[in-house]
Amino acid sequence: MEKISEFTVRRLSNYYRILLDLEKRGIPTVSSQRLAELGGITSAQVRKDLSYFGNFGTRGLGYSVTELKTAIMQILGLNQKWTLALFGAGSLGHALFFHQGFREDGFYFKYVFDVDPGKVGSRWGDTDIIHQRVAEETLRRDPVQIAVVATPPESAQDIVDLVVRVGIKGILNFAPTQIGVPDGVWLRNVNLAVALESLSFYLST
Amino acid sequence: MEKISEFTVRRLSNYYRILLDLEKRGIPTVSSQRLAELGGITSAQVRKDLSYFGNFGTRGLGYSVTELKTAIMQILGLNQKWTLALFGAGSLGHALFFHQGFREDGFYFKYVFDVDPGKVGSRWGDTDIIHQRVAEETLRRDPVQIAVVATPPESAQDIVDLVVRVGIKGILNFAPTQIGVPDGVWLRNVNLAVALESLSFYLST
Repeated sequence: MEKISEFTVRRLSNYYRILLDLEKRGIPTVSSQRLAELGGITSAQVRKDLSYFGNFGTRGLGYSVTELKTAIMQILGLNQKWTLALFGAGSLGHALFFHQGFREDGFYFKYVFDVDPGKVGSRWGDTDIIHQRVAEETLRRDPVQIAVVATPPESAQDIVDLVVRVGIKGILNFAPTQIGVPDGVWLRNVNLAVALESLSFYLST
Repeated sequence: MEKISEFTVRRLSNYYRILLDLEKRGIPTVSSQRLAELGGITSAQVRKDLSYFGNFGTRGLGYSVTELKTAIMQILGLNQKWTLALFGAGSLGHALFFHQGFREDGFYFKYVFDVDPGKVGSRWGDTDIIHQRVAEETLRRDPVQIAVVATPPESAQDIVDLVVRVGIKGILNFAPTQIGVPDGVWLRNVNLAVALESLSFYLST
């Protein structure tokens, strides 16, 4: 497969949400024009994005909502279950752990690690909060696919080094700091300030 | 000024973070090549993005880190203070309210609204949690610039309608649902699942 850019993947996620919504509302088909309108982009971009992955839709009829949704779900790897380890049981960690959308997508937190003795030993749902010092042995014994870092920035690189050491290939980092990973490990940084900065940009011009 | 795309603004935010980091490390100048490398894009893209806003840098010497950082800070509107109202005092709201990076950028939560009687009346730092039923009169009397929605999806559209009614022009929405706003109001949706879906995409191919 041709190399797919992160921006294409983001747009696929966006199409997926729109299609889920259309399906919920009982709408059977959608044109690339309508999909573009709902996604705030051009229909040429929609057709280009979808063309990477095969031939969807029928000329004049558009795409079947359910068929295209299922196809994108598979492309995004959402037809399988993903296991996650969470580092940092603060309020952000709590919000992520209980985020409804993750479970609906097939993302399950299997482990929660923290260093705070006031948190270690308590439970979130059925999941114990475990001390971070046993994270490495725990994850070696029972690996997960993705690590989510929701700790203060000072500890983020050490945690990333740890999860790389145990062989985890996907890392989602919320700590506002520059993190390095070796080749072959996928790192995504979520910077909560970026969306606010987009607003302040448009509001000040 | 030419119409600037959201993707350009996102990249500006990214340059800004890189420049802050370089400045902290005492590095005085940076080439577009190095900036591109650190940002994971091409140097042609860096030069194109920066060319929208004027002439930065000297051929052969690169950009002055502090000068370029200051310029981007102004472009993004971060040389002023922004006031925010938060809707939803759950764990996500708590994480956002105490997020260090927002304050550093000049974003201040002035009001926190919730409907839960167990939360209303308690305080976060110096800020009282106020019942959402008085949000409209509160914000009419004392407007803020940006509303942040961190409520369950069912209530998000009603809250957005309320903040549009009182004249707020910038909305950051974390509720995983499709929200409509009239022209002239800037809405940014942060979908926490999108970054995970980018990982599952790359991990499954």
